[in-house]
Amino acid sequence: MFKIITRISLLTVGLLSWFIMPAAAETTVSAEVGFIFNTFLFLVCGFLVMFMAAGFAMLESGMVTSKSVSVICAKNIGLFSIAGIMFWMFGYNVAYGIPEGGYIGKFIPWSDNSKISTGYADGSDWYFQMVFCATTVSIVSGTLAERIKLWPFFLFAAILTGFLYPFVMGWQWGGGWLAAAGFNDFAGSTLVHSTGGAAALAGAILLGPRLGRFTKSGAPSPVKPFAASSIPLVTIGVFILWLGWFGFNGGSQLAMGTGNDAIAVSKIFINTNLAACGGVIAAAIVTRLNFGKTDVIQMLNGAIGGLVAVTAEPLMPSPLAAILIGAVGGIIVVYGTKFLFAMKVDDVVGAIPAHLFAGIWGTLAVPITNSGANFGSQLLGVIAINGTVFVISLIVWAIMKNTMGIRLSKEAETKGTDVTETGVIAYAIRD
Amino acid sequence: MFKIITRISLLTVGLLSWFIMPAAAETTVSAEVGFIFNTFLFLVCGFLVMFMAAGFAMLESGMVTSKSVSVICAKNIGLFSIAGIMFWMFGYNVAYGIPEGGYIGKFIPWSDNSKISTGYADGSDWYFQMVFCATTVSIVSGTLAERIKLWPFFLFAAILTGFLYPFVMGWQWGGGWLAAAGFNDFAGSTLVHSTGGAAALAGAILLGPRLGRFTKSGAPSPVKPFAASSIPLVTIGVFILWLGWFGFNGGSQLAMGTGNDAIAVSKIFINTNLAACGGVIAAAIVTRLNFGKTDVIQMLNGAIGGLVAVTAEPLMPSPLAAILIGAVGGIIVVYGTKFLFAMKVDDVVGAIPAHLFAGIWGTLAVPITNSGANFGSQLLGVIAINGTVFVISLIVWAIMKNTMGIRLSKEAETKGTDVTETGVIAYAIRD
Amino acid sequence: MFKIITRISLLTVGLLSWFIMPAAAETTVSAEVGFIFNTFLFLVCGFLVMFMAAGFAMLESGMVTSKSVSVICAKNIGLFSIAGIMFWMFGYNVAYGIPEGGYIGKFIPWSDNSKISTGYADGSDWYFQMVFCATTVSIVSGTLAERIKLWPFFLFAAILTGFLYPFVMGWQWGGGWLAAAGFNDFAGSTLVHSTGGAAALAGAILLGPRLGRFTKSGAPSPVKPFAASSIPLVTIGVFILWLGWFGFNGGSQLAMGTGNDAIAVSKIFINTNLAACGGVIAAAIVTRLNFGKTDVIQMLNGAIGGLVAVTAEPLMPSPLAAILIGAVGGIIVVYGTKFLFAMKVDDVVGAIPAHLFAGIWGTLAVPITNSGANFGSQLLGVIAINGTVFVISLIVWAIMKNTMGIRLSKEAETKGTDVTETGVIAYAIRD
Repeated sequence: MFKIITRISLLTVGLLSWFIMPAAAETTVSAEVGFIFNTFLFLVCGFLVMFMAAGFAMLESGMVTSKSVSVICAKNIGLFSIAGIMFWMFGYNVAYGIPEGGYIGKFIPWSDNSKISTGYADGSDWYFQMVFCATTVSIVSGTLAERIKLWPFFLFAAILTGFLYPFVMGWQWGGGWLAAAGFNDFAGSTLVHSTGGAAALAGAILLGPRLGRFTKSGAPSPVKPFAASSIPLVTIGVFILWLGWFGFNGGSQLAMGTGNDAIAVSKIFINTNLAACGGVIAAAIVTRLNFGKTDVIQMLNGAIGGLVAVTAEPLMPSPLAAILIGAVGGIIVVYGTKFLFAMKVDDVVGAIPAHLFAGIWGTLAVPITNSGANFGSQLLGVIAINGTVFVISLIVWAIMKNTMGIRLSKEAETKGTDVTETGVIAYAIRD
Repeated sequence: MFKIITRISLLTVGLLSWFIMPAAAETTVSAEVGFIFNTFLFLVCGFLVMFMAAGFAMLESGMVTSKSVSVICAKNIGLFSIAGIMFWMFGYNVAYGIPEGGYIGKFIPWSDNSKISTGYADGSDWYFQMVFCATTVSIVSGTLAERIKLWPFFLFAAILTGFLYPFVMGWQWGGGWLAAAGFNDFAGSTLVHSTGGAAALAGAILLGPRLGRFTKSGAPSPVKPFAASSIPLVTIGVFILWLGWFGFNGGSQLAMGTGNDAIAVSKIFINTNLAACGGVIAAAIVTRLNFGKTDVIQMLNGAIGGLVAVTAEPLMPSPLAAILIGAVGGIIVVYGTKFLFAMKVDDVVGAIPAHLFAGIWGTLAVPITNSGANFGSQLLGVIAINGTVFVISLIVWAIMKNTMGIRLSKEAETKGTDVTETGVIAYAIRD
Repeated sequence: MFKIITRISLLTVGLLSWFIMPAAAETTVSAEVGFIFNTFLFLVCGFLVMFMAAGFAMLESGMVTSKSVSVICAKNIGLFSIAGIMFWMFGYNVAYGIPEGGYIGKFIPWSDNSKISTGYADGSDWYFQMVFCATTVSIVSGTLAERIKLWPFFLFAAILTGFLYPFVMGWQWGGGWLAAAGFNDFAGSTLVHSTGGAAALAGAILLGPRLGRFTKSGAPSPVKPFAASSIPLVTIGVFILWLGWFGFNGGSQLAMGTGNDAIAVSKIFINTNLAACGGVIAAAIVTRLNFGKTDVIQMLNGAIGGLVAVTAEPLMPSPLAAILIGAVGGIIVVYGTKFLFAMKVDDVVGAIPAHLFAGIWGTLAVPITNSGANFGSQLLGVIAINGTVFVISLIVWAIMKNTMGIRLSKEAETKGTDVTETGVIAYAIRD
């Protein structure tokens, strides 16, 4: 009897080994392991996006004239710091506090509520969202370069990162009305990039162009006096942004805890890369054919245009579709730059075409590859976000203009912002 | 009776807890968890290798004279974009399509076949292979700087990344005849680096040196007129490449899903680092002793030489062996540069010594530390790959030279490629 | 009978599924999975810290005058190489060999003892510790720029990385007497940063200031002749350091194999970021209010000061506390710089205020947020480490000064170190 039971028990063990253990060994990810993977994804993708702050700093340093470079550096290190503090103090709760009773009384710092059952460490999510927030204001700084006062810019950066960006972002990623209306924006073509671009556009209009930028006839002045200070710095800036975008879009899968998530993140990496490729090649071909020279600046901005365009939906497109979406983004950058010139809007680094215009394109293009999206909701989201950000930004800039002032004196601008604002010239190069 | 069975069942549970569960709890990695780890490794190492494109761009920007920097930036952002599209359109299938019936009809885009049972997300592998492909052509761009036309270079980049590199790479990593012949090249000393170097050498021979580079007596012209435009840009370029190399070699373990893989990747990180250290120190000592000055450019290129040398076998060497392999790589860079000068081959950035010569050394040195390799097979691989790449490249460059032309006019070269090709000067620095 | 046993066996299976398997599926991380996670953390954080070498190289290249940039690049690529080799040859065993019988006979290279049961791959830990070691000497190189001889600096780098840093670091992280005395230094405010700063201070005192740096009355010379060569390079340097610091502090959790570790690493990322933010904002406000201009260099160094300050305890502070700890770090940098000026100590890049002074602050501040720490032990550690490093460094520098000499001739310094030491000018920029 005992022998039989023993045998049966052994059989049980055998069966368990065969049926249950293999299951455990082949397809299960425990909740805690998934939690670690998800957190790891947020942290790794987060530091890639954090590094985009350096990319913007270099892109902008290289694009401005050599007498406004130190100030651009001060703006970029400053805005990233402001974004971190404001998003902690207000932003995160403005964005995600909605479901629990509106904004009033929610302006309290974020706090950690991590449990294994929530799927990832709260802190890693906060970090990932914070670097997105910082990206938004990075976009603004370049457009307004060379004539804006430093501290009013910092004030705007605080408002944008603490309130305005989180306010509109919460409509979608905070589970707000826009999400309910069926809007799709995977990683933020509109929520992040167009938001930055729209805020920059409002500022550029109220600030006016740099002295002597446009002749009376409307044609741009000869390029030489406004020449970019360093093309290699622009180039490393764009490569850093390109690198960071793998984190930006890949991390927006929000999970790495299953094989399917890993497959999705991999697809996102490929599409993100191919869209950038498409933007570069399209800009190269268009400028070479239409303007005679292969414009390296437009190639570099074309990469950004392609990346912004695919950000609204980096998962669903086929590789070919991603290339085409990016290529259109690159072409939009080239002609958007010309359009702003025609409008006499002085966007020093080309951020409005790359982030606002290409962002609109990418967002409206989502239904082409994602059958769960529809054009009406996409249009609604584009109009709601960009309209709100543009109007509120315009009001904020206008109030600042009429109180503290936002523009440097003609004297200061002529001498260069580096001398007047930071007292540090950017390049002290002697043979 | 029931009591006994209960006890036995409990005993079973206990035994299971003791014998099976501990096994599960201590040494098992489920297939899905392994799948995620492997994919994560490809993605993380892949983005590190992707960033090497920025490293090459900076290395080359800093090495060329200041009138050819914008074009180098255009070439680097352009070639990385071309590589992405060409490797998707042709390259991956050229390399890996061999076992299923040859190339004809295989020129179809790569498609995702991820299953948990395949061990990693197909997309992550594609991404990792793509950035390797891009590295190959990055190597070419610097050598030919300052006198090659931009678009013919882009055409060569397309051929190299879509066909030539995948063709020879498939012989080994696609499971082709070279793999069967016992050739060992862990991460591509020969397959990637020598391939890039051999293609560059063919181009440099057909293109000829820059105007005035060599005097009639064969001695190089006084250095000043060909001075590197920015040593700090070269330096950040090399540090980025060094960083990227952890991904290049570490990711070539192709797995992170077991403890043994994690141990292997760690060893690879150490050996990769130590080989670079060896290359730098060797170049510093050799230049200081032989030429009086500690040549910073040779130290920087010595790092590359060390890294290329260890790439053929970064796992098996002891740390001391890795240092020595890298040191020889660094010395090869110093004397290889002198050799090319003597041959009147104008390699603007020193890519041929660092990638081709050090790659040959590293590949032939594999049997010293890997008892599974033999010198004959290594020599066969070196000759087969480098011979094929050099000859086909020579033919391609020759055809292009005799049709569209590959060299700028004397006038254009004298004015500088930045003015003539991109219309954008690289450094517009005014005090 | 058999039926009953079968049912009971099935019940056993069911119970196992219910009680044991869910446990396995929901909260267990197997030892091997944990091993891989821990190793992955070391490797990822390690490559981030490795990249800090590039950050220091750029920070220093941008801060020195344009005639000493090539040598700074040579020093940085050289010191990182020396650190790698010396830490392998001596350092690791000096630091961790203590418990097994003292130093004598322990100067043997590190060897791999990885087992699943040890929790992580030995190699990944070695790699992580090695990049910390390199950081220490990176701190020294900037302070002494523009007048130190290259090879004596390399010799000091070898002594610091092979012996001095590992010697004092082992007191704490090697399980030595300081750890037993209750000293707390999570990621090395004192062990790494103050060590670098104290060694730099000793060197700066013995080396003396650059020619003409201070007037006889003690006031600094007009800034212009000592102007930083490139503010954007300083900026990208600081952003790279900021990025690397996530690895520096995050990796110092030393584990990622449980949910709690993942939560801790996430918190560390947030606090690290917020402390840097605090340092930047504090430096911006203080310089704007006190000196009229918003000093971009102090903002950038303020980030470093904030980061160093939080490094002693990045896990326990609340976000608000982290901001304040960092802000004080930033203020210390501003006034520490003025203090060194008053003392006529010429610290070319401001490394002593940022790494030594802010490191002391951060270490002494640990008990404010960590109830397990006490002020007495913190003070003991600060005095013991800094005192030892300063005194031994002073002795080493003095011996070198009186034998091989450490300072360039007046002639060489006036011509610039780039010409005399490397023979390569850093910026050869022509329009």
